[in-house]
Amino acid sequence: MAKVALGASTMLLPLPSVLVGADVDGKPNFLACAWCGIVNSRPPMLSASFGPHRHTFKGVKQQGTFSVNIPSVAQVKETDYCGITSGKDTDKVADCKFTVFYGKLANTPMISECPINLECRVLHTLNLGSQEMVVALIEEVYATDSCLTGGQPDVVKINPFLWVSRPSNQYWSFGKPIGEAFIVGKDIKH
Amino acid sequence: MAKVALGASTMLLPLPSVLVGADVDGKPNFLACAWCGIVNSRPPMLSASFGPHRHTFKGVKQQGTFSVNIPSVAQVKETDYCGITSGKDTDKVADCKFTVFYGKLANTPMISECPINLECRVLHTLNLGSQEMVVALIEEVYATDSCLTGGQPDVVKINPFLWVSRPSNQYWSFGKPIGEAFIVGKDIKH
Repeated sequence: MAKVALGASTMLLPLPSVLVGADVDGKPNFLACAWCGIVNSRPPMLSASFGPHRHTFKGVKQQGTFSVNIPSVAQVKETDYCGITSGKDTDKVADCKFTVFYGKLANTPMISECPINLECRVLHTLNLGSQEMVVALIEEVYATDSCLTGGQPDVVKINPFLWVSRPSNQYWSFGKPIGEAFIVGKDIKH
Repeated sequence: MAKVALGASTMLLPLPSVLVGADVDGKPNFLACAWCGIVNSRPPMLSASFGPHRHTFKGVKQQGTFSVNIPSVAQVKETDYCGITSGKDTDKVADCKFTVFYGKLANTPMISECPINLECRVLHTLNLGSQEMVVALIEEVYATDSCLTGGQPDVVKINPFLWVSRPSNQYWSFGKPIGEAFIVGKDIKH
């Protein structure tokens, strides 16, 4: 295969498209975030990176906690809206008709309409350049009961989506299973 | 929506399924990694988390560089194989019949068969518990020329996949576009 050097970029696939939430000056706000991923298994931790002047990030710094809400395909417009507007200018919760709920962490709002919600506590913050990366402990996971099968989150019922930046900025649905993890590789012998 | 608390876990969607590469004691090795994500835009940076005793991580520490290779659906068996075997026990490159190439960073092997390859230089390492998180500068991105459209990586031609851990461990293909980012949210008025 002939390879072409394209220059340095954030060309990773897949990228998530989640809604990060925090109370800002006592009012819930959410932003769309693609710079988010798991960074540790035990205990479970994730990273989320924020533009330093984002309104939600102000709340993250105020409380030291935030939520990560995984939207369904049904919330794609609301997710995008939370990415292209600022809580400095409008009440995104009212605009999106989100039902906000709270769990075990104070001032950490979550979106009821999103099938999966993670409550997170900030452990480390690292200023990397255009973003500040926050490493956070996942303290609790909530699921909408209709998205469970046998007590476990069911990706078909959750119907999540992802963000594809190249060649054009689009949200994409998940496709279908193509192989069992920790199994299909056994076909290759050494 | 009634919510159920499931306990703390790494329940994030989507999760990537990439192959991380490094020369270990002078020999290329690759491991499958789902704890990987973008953490900064300018300059482009990603994080990847490693079990401290993984053979590839030894090479990451030796060189201070590594590669991230985005496999296509055609490489799902090889990707899984690199996750369930160790370079301590076998030569994964030979077993998977990978064609290895090198770019601008010394001792940083990449897989020609993977449509996208990122060369990364370690900036920070943080021991988080079960994993060590590495924050790295993306120094170059390579693409297989047949996966480009108008000089840009084309997700349809790349045909990447992702990892879904719940309710069962499976690799999933990408689905289809469901909305234009930074556009569909404009339907919501404030």
